[in-house]
Formats: sequence, structure tokens, C-alpha cells
Amino acid sequence: MLRKATQKKPPQYVSFDGPDGQEDMPFLLTPGPLTTSSTVKLAMLADWGSRDIEFRQLIANIARQLLKIAGAGNEYECVLMQGSGTFAVEAALGSFCATGRKKKTLVIINGAYGHRAVKILGHLKRPCQILEFDEETPVDAATVDATLRDNKDIELVFIVHCETTTGVMNPLEDICKVCKDHGKTVYVDAMSSFGAVPIDMKKLDIDVLVSSANKCIEGVPGFGYVLCRRDLLKASQGKSHSVSLDLYDQWKAMEKTAQFRFTPPTHALIAFNQALIEHEDEGGTKARGKRYQRNCATLLKGMRKLGFQTLLGDDISGPIIQTFLSPADPRFDFDTFYEALRAHGFAIYPGKLTKRDSFRIGTIGKLDANVFERLLKAINLVLQDMGVTSNSPYK
Amino acid sequence: MLRKATQKKPPQYVSFDGPDGQEDMPFLLTPGPLTTSSTVKLAMLADWGSRDIEFRQLIANIARQLLKIAGAGNEYECVLMQGSGTFAVEAALGSFCATGRKKKTLVIINGAYGHRAVKILGHLKRPCQILEFDEETPVDAATVDATLRDNKDIELVFIVHCETTTGVMNPLEDICKVCKDHGKTVYVDAMSSFGAVPIDMKKLDIDVLVSSANKCIEGVPGFGYVLCRRDLLKASQGKSHSVSLDLYDQWKAMEKTAQFRFTPPTHALIAFNQALIEHEDEGGTKARGKRYQRNCATLLKGMRKLGFQTLLGDDISGPIIQTFLSPADPRFDFDTFYEALRAHGFAIYPGKLTKRDSFRIGTIGKLDANVFERLLKAINLVLQDMGVTSNSPYK
Repeated sequence: MLRKATQKKPPQYVSFDGPDGQEDMPFLLTPGPLTTSSTVKLAMLADWGSRDIEFRQLIANIARQLLKIAGAGNEYECVLMQGSGTFAVEAALGSFCATGRKKKTLVIINGAYGHRAVKILGHLKRPCQILEFDEETPVDAATVDATLRDNKDIELVFIVHCETTTGVMNPLEDICKVCKDHGKTVYVDAMSSFGAVPIDMKKLDIDVLVSSANKCIEGVPGFGYVLCRRDLLKASQGKSHSVSLDLYDQWKAMEKTAQFRFTPPTHALIAFNQALIEHEDEGGTKARGKRYQRNCATLLKGMRKLGFQTLLGDDISGPIIQTFLSPADPRFDFDTFYEALRAHGFAIYPGKLTKRDSFRIGTIGKLDANVFERLLKAINLVLQDMGVTSNSPYK
Repeated sequence: MLRKATQKKPPQYVSFDGPDGQEDMPFLLTPGPLTTSSTVKLAMLADWGSRDIEFRQLIANIARQLLKIAGAGNEYECVLMQGSGTFAVEAALGSFCATGRKKKTLVIINGAYGHRAVKILGHLKRPCQILEFDEETPVDAATVDATLRDNKDIELVFIVHCETTTGVMNPLEDICKVCKDHGKTVYVDAMSSFGAVPIDMKKLDIDVLVSSANKCIEGVPGFGYVLCRRDLLKASQGKSHSVSLDLYDQWKAMEKTAQFRFTPPTHALIAFNQALIEHEDEGGTKARGKRYQRNCATLLKGMRKLGFQTLLGDDISGPIIQTFLSPADPRFDFDTFYEALRAHGFAIYPGKLTKRDSFRIGTIGKLDANVFERLLKAINLVLQDMGVTSNSPYK
């Protein structure tokens, strides 16, 4: 069935301007992979040789642009890494986290991605301490301060900027200040925020930042990237637990040959180069963030009008993804709700809370407020069809 | 400059049928990334949700088709792994190679990819023995036999099917037989041969086989795949050195949720599904191998007519890539030759021999004999322009 559908005609791509052309594919209202522009996808209609001068220039251009967006100075490098964002996170953990008994890593957790870093460090047998906050609470800088005061053997602090588990934004500036006051290395997982929420690596003195192609730069998935201080990278020689994920080797080979060590995802890289152009054309991180904020405001206003309640207050939820509490009405069933919205052309996202029923709606990707107006109409229709009369959650 | 070019218009894709539409992009005569069909690339003009039922069906279909092509029975599994082919090779080495002192891995080497496996095993501190042959010589099964007789502590034998360092084909059937007579686990790196050279995993009793998306199935780069016995996979729980590259975890999550653990390269997977359809439509591995053989025969005949000499005899060189010895004529310069051919629309491949000057021309990808006829004309023109009068190599 799949085979025939694919043979019949190539799938249509989503149009940003209106409903035309999106007959087959939904808008992706998730934290990624997300809806990209048609021009980003069109860039993939070419087979580039990974050793050709044009391609080598293209990847150098990508690294340069990412450093520029991050406000990183001459003392920083950008290393691209094949695979998903987690591959880049693991590569950086393996390269920069303490290996011995005398020093350890502090992982600050308020969601699934902090837990994932702990899992990786455990697997790599790297000493690690946990500082955990409730999923519904942003990280508290004063508590980080106290932890660092009491644990002099902490070398590096790992912090997730926007935890897509709930959408909560952690106060990066305050946390960085505290860490730097204690002289610690700071590793920011900016997976879902980079490119939409301003981060000045130099000003905040951030040592390591990781994100991936298919987030707020609006590229397609296939690689991640690590922005970091050159001296840290140099010091990481021989430290990685893996050959494929060895950041130092990846960087050195790129320095020497301007090529990847191992086959790069050429099409994802070409698409990303186009996505970077469109990011700049839109007005950079500020303008992109504003569009996402408009998406978010439209969504929140409309959902509250329908009686939905958000998990987080607007002061702590970022513009990336919103968590809504599931209605208590017994006629509400998430799977039915999901499939019906999918039929209307919208793919939403399940919840990830341990304690309460919820669902999430992402506001990033090549989407504008019009898409969310249409989503709200579809949600209203679907709930009526389901016979749900109240969208209030359990108390 | 790059930016303007990209903004002006999306790059054209290579047309298989003639020179139309290939104004910007060359034919890729390399071992990958390679020239893919326009329909494979067109499949990427869609953003699929990685958790949607359609996408989960698509990845299940890919796994099923790969197992079918490999002649793998019910006792085999297919695990897809994000990243380049080397990521999949490392994942399988980390999952299946002996960790302790009592058992070790035999790596058979006659080129760069054998050496790479040794590098990875060394990095992972996995005990390993080397059996090395000259780059110009296929692996000799009798020598493997003797090595296994003398080293009872070998548990697994790693062998590269087609070594693209030279293009030499190793006698897989003979090597498998010897290994199985000694009761060893067999791991075949079939990176550049799978899909074009028939391999019957069940018949040859191969335990592990690795390849990647951008080889003879003619997809775009972004992931690799490991076909292996389910019992080996089960026994590998907790053995991997990496979370991202953990085959067992990747498999278990896929079994449970029909989803990748971490963001998959959605566009590369959609393209690969289309590539599998086209592989089957062409007539499967046999027909594809025949097309590559015709490419190869056209190339070899023409190059010999021009006075070029191949490194290998036709009895041991496969249909994947050919190594030509560089002409002794001092007017021959590889970089000039490369760039001139590139301007004619052909990207060839540098040599990798340690002892002799050479270059390589790949014969895989969405290319037919016509492309090679045109290449030969271009080579002749370029050599005339360079003033090269004889293409004979140094003795």
C-alpha cells in the first residue's frame, strides 16, 4: 500500500502560504523533525560530491554562520557531527566530561533530556552528580550556586536550555553566571532553542553548546553541531569513547582537508545551508523568535478560549513547545484526538509528564500564526465530533 | 558567492537520460555519495512526522526489504543506524566483538576499511588479531584457514567484501566456508557491494552484514544498516560502548514503538524507500549488478584503448570501482585532470594506494554505459588539452 502510494507520485510538500499542496502531508507541530520551507527541501534535488571544492566551501560556510549566530568569537570552533542531536550531545559529553575520580560532571535535570545526559555519562563510566528540579519548575540558580559551593570536585555543568519535556525555559544567564563565578566549564544543550532564543556564547562565557539541524534553523534532520572553545577541543584529544563520535578527530580532519572523515549527509547539509540563508533573510534569531512567539500567543489565547489549561505559566514557558493538560471529560481520548487532527493536516505531540495526562503542541518550524488559527478551528471541530463538552483538566 | 548561487535558483539535479538538467552538477563517479535518480530525490520534497503511522510503516518496510535482498531468514533482524556507514560498522563492532581477554576478533585486511575496523577495535580496547594481505591481492581463504587453526581464541572474523581502496573483491563464499568450518561468527562489511553483488546471508551463514544508504541501493547518505542474527543481537545487551550506537537498544525501541529512539534522518529514509522500489523495479541485485558490470566493461575497454593500465586483473576487480595507474608522462597531473573532468561534468576519485600513483573511477550509482562513453570522450579531450601523449604508467 505504501509502495503504490509512493510510486503513484512523489509526496507533496507542505506549503507555508496556504492549504494548497499540503494534501498529503500534515503541518508538524512537534519539537522536530519539523515543517521546513519548500526552498529548503528543493535544495536537496542535487547530488553533491562530498570531496568537491563547492561542497567543502558549503560546509565551511555552515560552520562560520553557526558561530556567528552563537556570538562566538575567534576562540571558538564549530564541529558538525553526523546523526541525530543526541549523537552530538554524546560526542560532546565523551569529549569534555571528566573521566577520572578526582573531578566530576554536574547534570542539572528538569526533564527527559537531563536524564538522557545522565544515562550517557553512566554508560561511559564518567563520574557525575545530579541536581534535579521538578519538571514544572525552571532550574533555580541559587540552588546551583549552593551545590557548586558544596562540591568543589565539579568540573563541568551540563544544563538544558529549553526542556521540551514541558517546554520550560531555564534561566541561562543566571545559571551561567553562577557556574562562571565558581570557575566551572559550562555545557549548554540548546537543542530546541538555538536560532530562536538569543544566546551570546562569548558574553555568557559558555564553553560548549550543542544543537541540531532540524530545530529552529529549520533544516532537515541528519546531523548535529557542537560549538566549543578551541582550547577545550585541543585538550580533548584521545578522550572520546568512540571513533565515529570523536569530536577532536572530526575537527582535525576538517581543519586538514575541509572534508568530513566519514561520508556526510550531503543533502541534509545542502538543505541546512539554504535554511541558514533563510534564517538570516528573516532577520536572524530575534525575528525568528518573534515569529515563534506570535505562533505561541495565538495558540495559547485560542486554547484558553476553548477552556484548555497549560501546565506552565507564561512566564516560564518558552516559545518552542506548549504543554496542555488533557481534559477530564471522559469522552476525551488522546489517540482519537491525535488521529482526527492528523486528518485535518496537523501532527501534534504526545505528552511526556510522569504524573499528569497531557499533550504538547510545538510552535517552531516554517509555520506562522495563520497555521495556528486554522489548527484552533480544527481542534474545536474535532472536540465537538468527539462529544467533549468541557476541556478543563482534572483538579 | 555560494550564497548568491543558492539563492538564485535551486541546484539542478542530474538527469540520467542525457546532459539536460545537469548543467550545475557532475555525475559522481565515486564509491558514494553517488548519483541518485531524480525520483529518489523528489521523494525528499516532504516533511514526514517521525512518529506518524505512515512513517513507522515506511521504516518497517525498509527493514523488511533489506532482509529480503540479503536472503536473510526469520532468524535475522535489520537495525537501522543514523550517521555514515562507519557509524553502523562501529555500532556492530561494539555490539558483537569480544570484550575480554579469552576471546578475540580476527580482522582480515587488504585495504583502508580493514585498517579502520582495527582502529575502532583498538579505541574500544577490544582484543583483536590482524591478518593482512597486499592491497592488490584478494584475501586467501587457505591462509584464513591456517590462522583460525592456530588461534582457537578467535571468536569473530571481520571481512570487507569489496575493498574500495582498490576495488578488489574478496572471495566471500570461500572465506565464509572456512570460518564456519571453524565455528566462527562472521561479520561482513558489504558497504559497497550490497545490492549489486548477490549475497545470501542464510546460505553463507553470515552472522552480521553492514552497509549504508548511499551505496548500491542508490539512496542518499544519512544512515547505515546492520543485518544480523537475532540471537547475537539479544546477547549483545549492555555490550555497546555508546548509547547512540547501541544496536540492542536501537532494536528494542524499534520493536516496542516502531520508532527510532532518537530523531531519524526522515528525508534520507523516504528517499531510501523510493530507492528500494527502484532497485526492485530494475530487477533486484542481479540486474543492478549487470548494469554496473556494463558500466565497468565500457570504462575498462575505453580506458585501455586510451593506453591506461588497471591496477588489478579483471578476474579480481569487482564492478564497483576501478583503479587506474597514473600515466608516467610528466605532463599528467591528477589535480589538473580532476578539475578538467569536473568541468566536463564528471567527478572522479583520487587513488588511495600507498606505493603507486593512481586514480579511481566508480561505476555505481544511477549511471549507465552512455555516461561512461561520454566520460571516455571527455578524458580523451582533457588529456589532449594537457598535452599528455602516452597514458602508460611507470613500469
